[in-house]
Amino acid sequence: MPQRITVYEVGPRDGLQNEAGIVATEGKLRLLRLLADAGLPRIEATSFVSPKWIPALADAAEIVADLPPRAGLRYVALVPNAKGLARLLAARARTGEGAPPVDAAVFMSASETHNQKNIHKTIAETYAAFEEVVPPALAKGLRVRGYVSTAWGCPYEGAVAPERVVEVAERLLALGCYQVSLGDTIGVGTPNQTRRLLDLLLARTRPEALALHMHDTRGTALANVLVGLEAGLTTFDASVGGLGGCPYAPGASGNLATEDLVYMLHGMGYETGVDWPLLIAAGELAQRLVGRHLPGKALQAELASRPVLAGAGA
Amino acid sequence: MPQRITVYEVGPRDGLQNEAGIVATEGKLRLLRLLADAGLPRIEATSFVSPKWIPALADAAEIVADLPPRAGLRYVALVPNAKGLARLLAARARTGEGAPPVDAAVFMSASETHNQKNIHKTIAETYAAFEEVVPPALAKGLRVRGYVSTAWGCPYEGAVAPERVVEVAERLLALGCYQVSLGDTIGVGTPNQTRRLLDLLLARTRPEALALHMHDTRGTALANVLVGLEAGLTTFDASVGGLGGCPYAPGASGNLATEDLVYMLHGMGYETGVDWPLLIAAGELAQRLVGRHLPGKALQAELASRPVLAGAGA
Repeated sequence: MPQRITVYEVGPRDGLQNEAGIVATEGKLRLLRLLADAGLPRIEATSFVSPKWIPALADAAEIVADLPPRAGLRYVALVPNAKGLARLLAARARTGEGAPPVDAAVFMSASETHNQKNIHKTIAETYAAFEEVVPPALAKGLRVRGYVSTAWGCPYEGAVAPERVVEVAERLLALGCYQVSLGDTIGVGTPNQTRRLLDLLLARTRPEALALHMHDTRGTALANVLVGLEAGLTTFDASVGGLGGCPYAPGASGNLATEDLVYMLHGMGYETGVDWPLLIAAGELAQRLVGRHLPGKALQAELASRPVLAGAGA
Repeated sequence: MPQRITVYEVGPRDGLQNEAGIVATEGKLRLLRLLADAGLPRIEATSFVSPKWIPALADAAEIVADLPPRAGLRYVALVPNAKGLARLLAARARTGEGAPPVDAAVFMSASETHNQKNIHKTIAETYAAFEEVVPPALAKGLRVRGYVSTAWGCPYEGAVAPERVVEVAERLLALGCYQVSLGDTIGVGTPNQTRRLLDLLLARTRPEALALHMHDTRGTALANVLVGLEAGLTTFDASVGGLGGCPYAPGASGNLATEDLVYMLHGMGYETGVDWPLLIAAGELAQRLVGRHLPGKALQAELASRPVLAGAGA
């Protein structure tokens, strides 16, 4: 029986939050519907971060109110602080009985400087702030996921010691996060480093408590995913079309593209529940929403290999 | 002591042969000089294919006459048939005593249809033709490398059975090729498939007799390279900037980019002898020669992360 791998889609939140031209709420909901139809089992839909910081996600409550339900699908919303949690809970309170489940997620960095630049707190202050988010969220019946950014390297500090990542991951799990996703924020990770990091972590926790969130900035994302698969991990984050993840420049890549991940997993005989043609359709829609070609390679290969239709009427 | 990996650069031949605008001989020689300076130990410089088929490489003899020497560096020229071998030998005869070594390479496909479309012979006819190329080349003191295209999949026939690849590879080694490079021509390979193929081959030959020539069309190139490293292979083909390898469309990728390969190898602690800043300079030159951004990810990340200089005089 083929092993099941959970493809954790982050495009609608991570991908769209950095767009210069804000995508309209209706466009986001169309993308969410298509991703749901494609069978993604986890979709990070939005973030209850302050609209002052990220105006593109000011419609978080409207998004949560309209999330399309699908069997087995759980959505996720980022909650950076107690206020964000209160907004998520208020939005949830307004949805009906049949609304799909929405988990919460908290995020911090393994490197002090990135943490301070990104969330305006020291790592110690972040632990304290999460005491006001995670236990209350759990008390309200939410599941909470944790993110550790800069787990391979930091744009300000360079290489990050795996022991630092282990410390942050253990704190998040001890707080009650059901899973910690390790983020290669600047896409510098290579396989031996990934193996060492996972060896350290798996001496302390089970594989299901960990996920990899790789960036393909230097083409190494799927090689690192392969190391994760070999270590027994079963959840991998990716973004439709490779949307988001702070690409530096035209043609540069950030997030691992969902299509590239799913292509490799299916080719290796894993089950994901993802429907390939519908996933490609979601990638096409994402391209139209942001008005440019996205860096995902399998998406581009798939679109380019389609038969070219002759002119009108063909 | 770190293990040494041979990065086999194919950009000047594979990359430039398909350019719509033919790159001038002087431009090609500048690129070859920069790649030589960067420390690449093997560089495929040109092809003695008929200029009727590939006009972009009509200057093969001029290229061979001007190859920059460097300690430890061996160039390679493709020789599709006896006539091509004669042209290579004639070009070599005109170079002086201190000219750098030039190996020969022959190429065919593991799938019948691709072989016929690409080299206009059946696989059986190709074996016969190689009898007129490989033994005579060896007799003249040349080393000969063999390529097996479509070793993972064929654009006309779909999946290619690994037993077909083994048969072709064994024939090329038996003919006297010192190494066979397995090409994922359409970039469909995934890790379990690669492992099965290498297991079959390594039951019959030593790792040094094999190389991987992966395409990154679907983002899986480095994951397949990782499988090759784990299997003990020590030679991997790549192309500066990801030049060439028949990318389908703008933004789509063909050949694995040399920068992506070298980035991962160095990150894993392997020695390549390649100088990173000079390799990036070669990638920049390749972009200027072809007049567009190349798909190599590490190249784009490196160029984008450079400090932007203020205006003139800064």
